[in-house]
Amino acid sequence: MRLSRYFLPILKETPKEAEIVSHRLMLRAGMIRQQAAGLYSWLPLGKRVLDKVSRVIREEQDRSGAIEMLMPTIQSADLWRESGRYDDYGKEMLRIEDRHERDLLFGPTNEEMITDIFRSYVRSYKDLPLNLYHIQWKFRDEVRPRFGVMRSREFLMKDAYSFDIDYESSKTAYDRMFVAYLRTFERMGLKAIPMRADTGPIGGKLSHEFIILASTGESEVFCHRDYLDMAAPGEGVDFTDAAALADIVNTWTTPYAATEEMHDEAAWNAVPEGERVAARGIEVGHIFHFGTKYSEPMKAYVTGPDGKDVPVFMGSYGIGPSRLIAAIIEASHDENGIIWPKGVAPFDVGLINMKPGDAECDVVCERLYAELQAAGQDVLYDDQDTRAGAKFATMDLIGLPVQIIVGPRGAKAGEVELKLRAGGERETLPVGDVLRRLSA
Amino acid sequence: MRLSRYFLPILKETPKEAEIVSHRLMLRAGMIRQQAAGLYSWLPLGKRVLDKVSRVIREEQDRSGAIEMLMPTIQSADLWRESGRYDDYGKEMLRIEDRHERDLLFGPTNEEMITDIFRSYVRSYKDLPLNLYHIQWKFRDEVRPRFGVMRSREFLMKDAYSFDIDYESSKTAYDRMFVAYLRTFERMGLKAIPMRADTGPIGGKLSHEFIILASTGESEVFCHRDYLDMAAPGEGVDFTDAAALADIVNTWTTPYAATEEMHDEAAWNAVPEGERVAARGIEVGHIFHFGTKYSEPMKAYVTGPDGKDVPVFMGSYGIGPSRLIAAIIEASHDENGIIWPKGVAPFDVGLINMKPGDAECDVVCERLYAELQAAGQDVLYDDQDTRAGAKFATMDLIGLPVQIIVGPRGAKAGEVELKLRAGGERETLPVGDVLRRLSA
Repeated sequence: MRLSRYFLPILKETPKEAEIVSHRLMLRAGMIRQQAAGLYSWLPLGKRVLDKVSRVIREEQDRSGAIEMLMPTIQSADLWRESGRYDDYGKEMLRIEDRHERDLLFGPTNEEMITDIFRSYVRSYKDLPLNLYHIQWKFRDEVRPRFGVMRSREFLMKDAYSFDIDYESSKTAYDRMFVAYLRTFERMGLKAIPMRADTGPIGGKLSHEFIILASTGESEVFCHRDYLDMAAPGEGVDFTDAAALADIVNTWTTPYAATEEMHDEAAWNAVPEGERVAARGIEVGHIFHFGTKYSEPMKAYVTGPDGKDVPVFMGSYGIGPSRLIAAIIEASHDENGIIWPKGVAPFDVGLINMKPGDAECDVVCERLYAELQAAGQDVLYDDQDTRAGAKFATMDLIGLPVQIIVGPRGAKAGEVELKLRAGGERETLPVGDVLRRLSA
Repeated sequence: MRLSRYFLPILKETPKEAEIVSHRLMLRAGMIRQQAAGLYSWLPLGKRVLDKVSRVIREEQDRSGAIEMLMPTIQSADLWRESGRYDDYGKEMLRIEDRHERDLLFGPTNEEMITDIFRSYVRSYKDLPLNLYHIQWKFRDEVRPRFGVMRSREFLMKDAYSFDIDYESSKTAYDRMFVAYLRTFERMGLKAIPMRADTGPIGGKLSHEFIILASTGESEVFCHRDYLDMAAPGEGVDFTDAAALADIVNTWTTPYAATEEMHDEAAWNAVPEGERVAARGIEVGHIFHFGTKYSEPMKAYVTGPDGKDVPVFMGSYGIGPSRLIAAIIEASHDENGIIWPKGVAPFDVGLINMKPGDAECDVVCERLYAELQAAGQDVLYDDQDTRAGAKFATMDLIGLPVQIIVGPRGAKAGEVELKLRAGGERETLPVGDVLRRLSA
């Protein structure tokens, strides 16, 4: 993409209304714009990150065997009356009346609807296990939306729903998502720690929140230092091997880790003092095992191998891509701006032409722009006639992993400068070596 | 994807509520499920088509220079009061009150919001032309939703908005989208005819609907027979060449073509009788040039090269991917089911194992499944132990372009059968030739 033809409205001033760094940086970098309280537009740069984050989530859901579909944002209130949650849910649910005075709502989550879909089609244990997910906009009418997309009212959520014939296989479904989440967050450069968590309005007894430690976190969390050094399972993990999944989950749940609501002082005191990490945390994922909480009242029954009908065992599994982006920035930035982890950067490379109009600069830039794109790299090419300081500041602010700087002297000598955004390392190299260097 | 692990709830009965063939076939093929009046879930097969259709639209929008972003579904009523449309829009607008009793609405279109975004950031003619688009769910509270996703209440829409300094360049922006639309529909195997159309609640004087002829169309349309033989511009079209774009638009608007509202009896009678096509049509796209209708009341001004501030000239350009899928099916099906055009099929190939468990069938199928996927083909592998008749009926119903049938006798001889869904042609060929045959 040529910057001269892109829409990247960088703000020079730091917006006063933004209380946390991710909100400030997303506004300054032209990623988002507030349309009303808790309602955001994703400007082109932000939309690209949203797509990249969603892609990683999707790849790991698919790898684990979950199947993508898409439910509507608007739901009928009748479904929620069946589960008993319509009255329970409170004012966070956006309730709507249509022209025929029928009660609708903007879905805050989809347990009821997916249970309804399941019961319409599935009758036999032979069609299980099943895990269906979608990535769709949700709405929760927060009394005080704040922190930008970290706590907005309309937000994107990936929610998956598992269906199994009994407790044991549904626990395996839970483990499968647990492991998929470890991989998902690691691919985004995040250290997410699974912590025993309260189940709130979703229900059930078993639940983990995946938490990133950050000073701007919304709640206090407690965990063993060991988590900081644990590595997520690799690509080769076998999602059909229940025992292997249980082992991984066991490893990741043995050291102490709990959110404030689930904090257990006695267990905490048993952790050696030097190993205790008490910090603030941001929730980036939340998984629930709630068994038959919805299938019983909504009569989602399947016939087992013994011919008997049983309510299906369920779990649900959420990640919010929009809030996740804010969390990534909280975890990865410096005083100059955002530092995108490789897998979710809006562009892979920022190509800076220091002197557009200079014949040699233009030739080198056009060549690199074409070569890098042909090699599958997403390139943002700054072809604008602006000051050097503004060019560098913009590139640092938007945080692309690699910058390639083409100045007239270097171009004449057939050389460019390469800068890594994360550590600031710089090197000068021949134009012909750039492609090899970046694919290394 | 292995069918045994997929969620493809085929209906054996033809659903009684479905009045048109696309609705019937989408329900039977397990693509969609109605959740409430005019609200549909997209089941996994349907979601795949939605993604493929959206991808084609996105590629052609990007090619034309439009830039993708994403606006929220929920909008503030205040914006619509600024333009004067809040009261005009009528009962089709889903009006919502939040917990603080602020007036919101589920966006039926985004002229106001995009104008608001534009005026917040853009001040100078130097940042023009600009075309921003998004693909987002919209809601129109139809008094009588029907025909499945053809006329649903919640529906997906790609809407693009162009901004230009004067009438002439905004007409070029209009031409650019006009040409992008011709290409988009052609890539989906559709013959879409641009017809002068009424502008309705969007406003402006210049507008075209892109119409597919189909007996189940919602309205009567009139056009010259010449349109049926015209070919859309190729990949090489230069979207920066205003004169070339105007030429194409001229060619495509010279023969008579009009919707019922814009029909002109005198002009129609001037068309030689043998050249007249009066038929029913389905609208698949609608483009509008409305100049300063929104920029004036909403004060979206830019400074021109002469230093004077002028209201920006705008147009908007819509395609509904969800309704488009129904239209494609109306145009492409037979008595056995859907016939997907290549670019939008949910899978490229259906691989049918006639006898799972037979060692030779399994080996051949696993080999082809791996090879085809490695070659970038999306494969649905029917590995289920079901009757031959059911297997064939399902594959024909879901309409994948190519079927590869692996039976025990053929597998032993190293041969498979290849069937093209569209024409029903069959050929037997060696296993080793399949890949070459499909990439030919």
